[in-house]
Parts: sequence; C-alpha cells; structure tokens
Amino acid sequence: MRATYLFGAGDIRVIDVPDPMVQLPTDALVRVVRACVCGSDLHPYHSRPASENGASIGHEFVGVVEEVGAEVTTLSAGDFVIAPFAVSCGWCEFCRAGLQTSCVNGGFWNDRKLGTGGGQAEAVRVPLADGTLVAVPGVDAGTDETRLASLLTLSDVYGTGWHAALRGGVGAGSTVTVIGDGAVGLLAVLSAARLGAERIVLMGRHHVRTDLGREFGATDVVAERGEEGIAAVRELTDGGSPIVLEAVGHLPAYEQAVGVVRPGGVISRVGVPQYADAPVGFGSLFGPNITLTGGPAPARAYIERLLPDVLDGTVNPGRVFDAVADLEDVAKAYAAMDERSALKVMIRP
Amino acid sequence: MRATYLFGAGDIRVIDVPDPMVQLPTDALVRVVRACVCGSDLHPYHSRPASENGASIGHEFVGVVEEVGAEVTTLSAGDFVIAPFAVSCGWCEFCRAGLQTSCVNGGFWNDRKLGTGGGQAEAVRVPLADGTLVAVPGVDAGTDETRLASLLTLSDVYGTGWHAALRGGVGAGSTVTVIGDGAVGLLAVLSAARLGAERIVLMGRHHVRTDLGREFGATDVVAERGEEGIAAVRELTDGGSPIVLEAVGHLPAYEQAVGVVRPGGVISRVGVPQYADAPVGFGSLFGPNITLTGGPAPARAYIERLLPDVLDGTVNPGRVFDAVADLEDVAKAYAAMDERSALKVMIRP
Repeated sequence: MRATYLFGAGDIRVIDVPDPMVQLPTDALVRVVRACVCGSDLHPYHSRPASENGASIGHEFVGVVEEVGAEVTTLSAGDFVIAPFAVSCGWCEFCRAGLQTSCVNGGFWNDRKLGTGGGQAEAVRVPLADGTLVAVPGVDAGTDETRLASLLTLSDVYGTGWHAALRGGVGAGSTVTVIGDGAVGLLAVLSAARLGAERIVLMGRHHVRTDLGREFGATDVVAERGEEGIAAVRELTDGGSPIVLEAVGHLPAYEQAVGVVRPGGVISRVGVPQYADAPVGFGSLFGPNITLTGGPAPARAYIERLLPDVLDGTVNPGRVFDAVADLEDVAKAYAAMDERSALKVMIRP
Repeated sequence: MRATYLFGAGDIRVIDVPDPMVQLPTDALVRVVRACVCGSDLHPYHSRPASENGASIGHEFVGVVEEVGAEVTTLSAGDFVIAPFAVSCGWCEFCRAGLQTSCVNGGFWNDRKLGTGGGQAEAVRVPLADGTLVAVPGVDAGTDETRLASLLTLSDVYGTGWHAALRGGVGAGSTVTVIGDGAVGLLAVLSAARLGAERIVLMGRHHVRTDLGREFGATDVVAERGEEGIAAVRELTDGGSPIVLEAVGHLPAYEQAVGVVRPGGVISRVGVPQYADAPVGFGSLFGPNITLTGGPAPARAYIERLLPDVLDGTVNPGRVFDAVADLEDVAKAYAAMDERSALKVMIRP
C-alpha cells in the first residue's frame, strides 16, 4: 500500500510499504477513509534528523474496518470507526480512569514496539482494537464530506481542545484565554464555549483563523504577542485570566500563559512542549499559586460525550479543515500548513 | 526595642531598633509572645549578600494587641492574636477567594513598601489589622506553653502543610507521598491524615523527625533519596503516588516529586522554590498529564478551620518545636536549625 514517511526535516514522501495485516487476535485492520496533518506533525517535519529508511507518520484517521482478529468483540468488518491518537486497552487502571494516553498496554501510532504504522496511509493495523476504536453507526463513508471532517476531529484536535478546557476547569461563566489560533486553539475555544464560558479571549494573529474562532465562541481577539499581548489580555480580563489554555507548545507561548494568568489561576497545556525546562519558580507559578496542568488528551475518553452534537450538526468542529489533498499530495499539505497558507489539511487516500 | 536582623549569609544579630508604632488608622501594634525560625528563613541565612544596615527577619508570631488604630473594629488592646505570614486586607477579590497571599492591598513582613518589620522581635506593627490578625479568646499568654506552640504553627507551618494537602486534593482514602521531614513536611503529613488519607509515605532521613511523622499519621517512611528513593516509593505505591506534597523547595526535591508521581497525578509544592526553571516538558509533567500546583499558603484562610482542634488538643502541631531560645539567643537558634540539631526553634522575646 501507499503510506506517508518522514525521511528528515522537510523530507516527506509517499512510498510503497507492505500491506498491514491482522497480526494478533485483538487487532483490527482499518481502511483509511480520511486522515489529516496535525500541527504537532510539523515539529518533526522541522527537526527530524535525516535517515535512509524514514519513519511512518500521521496519527489522526477515520476509516472502515476491513478485518478483525478472533478476540475482537465490539467491531465487525464494514464498521465506520474513529481512531483516537493513542492505542489503549480499555481495561487497565488508566483507561478506566479516562487517561488512555497513559494506558499500560497501549501506546501510539508509528511506534516500533507496538508495531504500529501511521494514519497518513491507505490502511492501518490497529492493536487492542476493542479498546482503541469507536464505531459510529450510520455514517456513509462515501458521501457525507462535512460530517467526515467533524468526525475526524474527534481523533485528536477536538478532543485535545476539550481536554484543555476540562483540565483548565472551564464551567458556566468562566473567563478563559486561549493561546494559539491553530486547529487545537480554535477547538479549545469551541470547547470552552460548550462548557459555558462567558468570556473567551483568543490570542492569535491570523484573521481567517481568529474569525473562525469568533464563530466558535471567542468574545475577544488579541493579535499582539509578547509584553504587548500580555498587557492587552490583562486589561481585557481586569488583571489576568483565571483560566489559560495553551495550544501551541513553544516556550514563548508558555511564557505568554504565565504572563496573562490571574493569581490563583490555571494554565492548561495541550500544545506538545518543544522545551524541557521552563519557569516555575517564585516569580512565575509559585508566588501567585498558579496551577499548571494538561498533557496529551485522552481523546478516546471524550468521543462518546462529543459525538452526538457532531452527528446532529449542533457543532461543526470540522470547519478547521480548510483544504483537502490526495494522499499522493501529502508533501504539499505539509508545506501549506508549514507556511500557514492552510490551517489544517485533510488527506484523502 | 530588640529585633532580629540579618546582615548577610550566616550573620544574624539582635539589635536595638526604634519602637514600632501605630501609623495608620488600620494598624495594630502587637507585643510578641512567641515567634520562631522558619525553614525558609534558612534560605536567606545561606545566601543573603552582606549589607551594612541589614534587614529585619521573621514572619511567624503570636502576641497580644497593645494598641489599635482608630479604624480597627475587630480587635482591642489585650486580645491574643495569631499573625499569619502575610498581611491581607480581607476584602479584596483574592482575600474573599481565600488567597490572602495575593491580596492586592497587603504584602509580607519585612517589606519596605509596607513598612513592616519582622516577627523575631519584641513587637510588630501590623498593617490592615482587621484583615490580617485572628483574635483567639481564652488564651493565657503567660501559662499555656503547649497550646502557645500549637497556636504559633497556625502562623505558617500548619497552614502551609494544610495548603499542600488541600491543593493536592487529598481526601478520604488518598495515597499521598510527602517529600521533606521539616516542620512543613511533618504538618503536611498531619494535614493529609486529618483530610482522610489512607496511605501516607514520608520521604525523610532524620529518625527523630520521621518518628514524629509516624505519630502524625505517616504509614511508611522512605529514607533513601534520588533514584533509590524514587524506586522505593514507586514500589510502595504500586507504580507511583497519585498525590505528592513537596515541602523542601530545592530542585532535587522537585525532581523527586516528578519521579514518584503517578500518571494523571498531582504535585503540590509548598517548599519555597530555590530555582527559577525546572523540567515541565513531555518527559516530566506533560506526557503523563501531571498537574503542578501549590504556592505560598494563605495561612489566614485556614486559621478558623484549624483552630478548634488545636484549642481542644485534638491535634498538637506544636510538637514540631523541639527547642526554645530567648530572643537574645536567636543566632544560636538559626545555627541549630541550620546544622539540623533542632527541627524548629521557638523564640521567646
């Protein structure tokens, strides 16, 4: 089959690889209907050292089950499924607690130990299929493009935005600042609005994106960055935002979060940190009793909760996709997201 | 009057200073009955650059009101009072939210802007007295030594241990690891036990202290540090502690906390960080969705809640005091705590 591999910084190619197969009785083989490129894929796209063999990439997809192993009980060939970005067993302590990203039996896509490939491909072998996949009855993989886009966001970005808001403690009447106008930031805005936030300040400088953020529920947009941006948010929120959702992952975004958060407030991070150390001392987090929380979203934990409103069109998180590319054009999709001419590109195998 | 001043690292002296006075109508003048040396006083005692004039020190005291300003309504001359380690107005947003350490009108002892002196002295001018001080009826400052010791812990260390446990989310049945066997660590153990924790692992290597920790409620003691200590706690807690209370403030204690915490768990810090940056990236906090919380305790917020059990002797947090010194001997008290021959020294003016 054809699959996307990253061979080094900027060197993304679609190549021929062996067809994936059911290997274990708990596996499923899924034919990919739609995949996409994630903002977090751009991190290795910028920095991965060159290698001869490359490595598969992509961790968001929806598809149709083609075959299941003998022990799979909740899925059958023909089922339309959403694949969250983590593989999880469903029965360990962490899965039961809704923290599937810490599953002791699972792992992630593109993982050598688990033997998983990537979602930006024609098909994917899914380990621990009962725990990992969510079947969605009544979806026609051939016709309903709008719905497919929104379902695909449940694989990662909508669940990740939701995780940010939940961990941040957003509730009725909350004042929230969202840092980042990428797909996750915009869906953190949508999530905060769904959870009842009254004031949502979106920090971002790309008009098309922040306009969508307003449609998703942002009440204010701050385009400035650094000290100027911090001052603007502190002014808007009368001294600092009680909840800050950080959806970027670079150190300046973290520093911005520390700058705008209110004493006693919460910074909830879902942007994958591209730094190891950061300020946490008396002058940053400790003195004003700031809580730092967040991490990789257990997207699997949120699918059932978020699905009904997606299926009936109450929300349309799939609007974050502003471009579609065939699998063979995946390199163009990466380039478009990298140069920010596209917000998020859907991939059609 | 006589007051303790720090003139540089290791150079602590009791000197003559002008008598404090009521300056503002919201002030009270308090005659100190008991003060003490805090583990956090040892940080400047180790590192303060030498200066000719020195600076006052000490932030924990109980005393008797000698005089009040015209606008003070809740206190009268003769009242026995507990002074928390922060000055707070009582009516700003943060005071009303129980975060008096972020009071917009207050501050701390030994603060030039507020014009406050230190607690290790014969008397103290207390600004915003109605908001700051808590009067305790029925205490005889002359006779009840045991009770005075426990009341004095409400000035800081018991409230700080309580804050650690509260922020860590300790409740009935919790498994908790406490890092540090100083007064705050031991009172974090007591607080966790009072809040219903079932398993309390105390990390500390001083037998006298960890023995007291066991009396306060620790179910296990781990004396090892570093990787060995981490392995021991992970073994005892079957894979990591869901709640970790960090009561030291040095970077190795933070790293220890990161090492022993369970995925999805909480690190609650109350040891004043002696570092600006620390690991918070994918491999430390982010990947396993660890929450980092805590800060300076709003001791003022907890006094009413903790007072009844202290007054009736249900708890005896004052047991952390294992030595008493006259004010004139304060330098010996610092030296004893610094060389760890004393856990916490009470000062008698």
